[in-house]
Amino acid sequence: MRLFGYWRSTTAYRVRIALNLKQLEYESVPVNLVSGEQKLPDYAALNPSRAVPTLVTDDGTALTQSMAILDWLEETRPEPALLPRDATLRARVRAAAFGIATDVHPVNNLRIVERLKAMGHTQDDVVAWMNHWMELGFATFSDLVEDGSAFCFGDAPGLADLCLVPQLYNARRWNMNLTPFPRLTEIEARCLALRAFDAARPERQADAA
Amino acid sequence: MRLFGYWRSTTAYRVRIALNLKQLEYESVPVNLVSGEQKLPDYAALNPSRAVPTLVTDDGTALTQSMAILDWLEETRPEPALLPRDATLRARVRAAAFGIATDVHPVNNLRIVERLKAMGHTQDDVVAWMNHWMELGFATFSDLVEDGSAFCFGDAPGLADLCLVPQLYNARRWNMNLTPFPRLTEIEARCLALRAFDAARPERQADAA
Repeated sequence: MRLFGYWRSTTAYRVRIALNLKQLEYESVPVNLVSGEQKLPDYAALNPSRAVPTLVTDDGTALTQSMAILDWLEETRPEPALLPRDATLRARVRAAAFGIATDVHPVNNLRIVERLKAMGHTQDDVVAWMNHWMELGFATFSDLVEDGSAFCFGDAPGLADLCLVPQLYNARRWNMNLTPFPRLTEIEARCLALRAFDAARPERQADAA
Repeated sequence: MRLFGYWRSTTAYRVRIALNLKQLEYESVPVNLVSGEQKLPDYAALNPSRAVPTLVTDDGTALTQSMAILDWLEETRPEPALLPRDATLRARVRAAAFGIATDVHPVNNLRIVERLKAMGHTQDDVVAWMNHWMELGFATFSDLVEDGSAFCFGDAPGLADLCLVPQLYNARRWNMNLTPFPRLTEIEARCLALRAFDAARPERQADAA
């Protein structure tokens, strides 16, 4: 499999963690979002949303949208599981994951930042914007995770953890104060101590600048 | 089951369609987003993200995040299916659905509009902002749907259709020009001719103003 990604993309980071947790080998193909490589015709033909990640499977199928890719991985490579078996628990884990995947990441990504700047906003305005949505999102996420478990839900990392850790990376990048969220940073530390998470870190990627 | 929603919420609209397609009875509980009822303590205890929809199941469990609720419905009430059986096709349908659920809706919802206005933007600026993301999202969505099928994928409505139709409602609300997307408006017309979609329309809800 080939994963088209970008070192700092939090959505590509999610998929890297999942591939590592499921011990799947893949080739990493960097797409430089800052220079606009995602808009080049060859890449846009692969991924009409002109975004990362794209996972090209062994039979050449291009899968897009990180949350759809994660579902596909879970369905085709079920072990180790990213979701519990019980339907209600699955819904709880997914709700936490979507709290980041729909309520935080989409309003903070590069194209939104570029649009706000084109509307006359400064870098400080944009950082305040990003931190505002992360604060709300992390507060909600803190309410949703299980109490006292090693990871977000239970004693193994799963879908919620692999959405959380990349978003916390982004929070640190923009100097957000994370002291109100000790439960989340504890889970983060436990995740990053695992090889699957550590190897997926942005700074460990070949295209890290 | 009880569905806490708001007539104009496109995410509640998705869940109403799914409940109708699966022929599940539910009680509708309106939450007035404009007057801020979603922020009241009783509701926030049910849904920490202070958003709609929330589906309270027969055993009293509160499920949040529309995409997680849709997965739960699909897993617990599999017929009629919202997703195909083949894993690669499922990933394609999900990618289209997430194109709306992550790339369009979150950047256009009420709290974003309120934030932009608080940053000094006019109603015209905000409408231009919303239409910009819808144009990009609908263009991508058009590239992803199947060619020539009755619905987005195949001959029955599914997850992609029930994300598309509410977002097109929102596009019309903001007077977006939909003529560049004839395939999508054709699918929309075919969906709205079905009772499950028609009964879920915003204007058919008890709280429609």
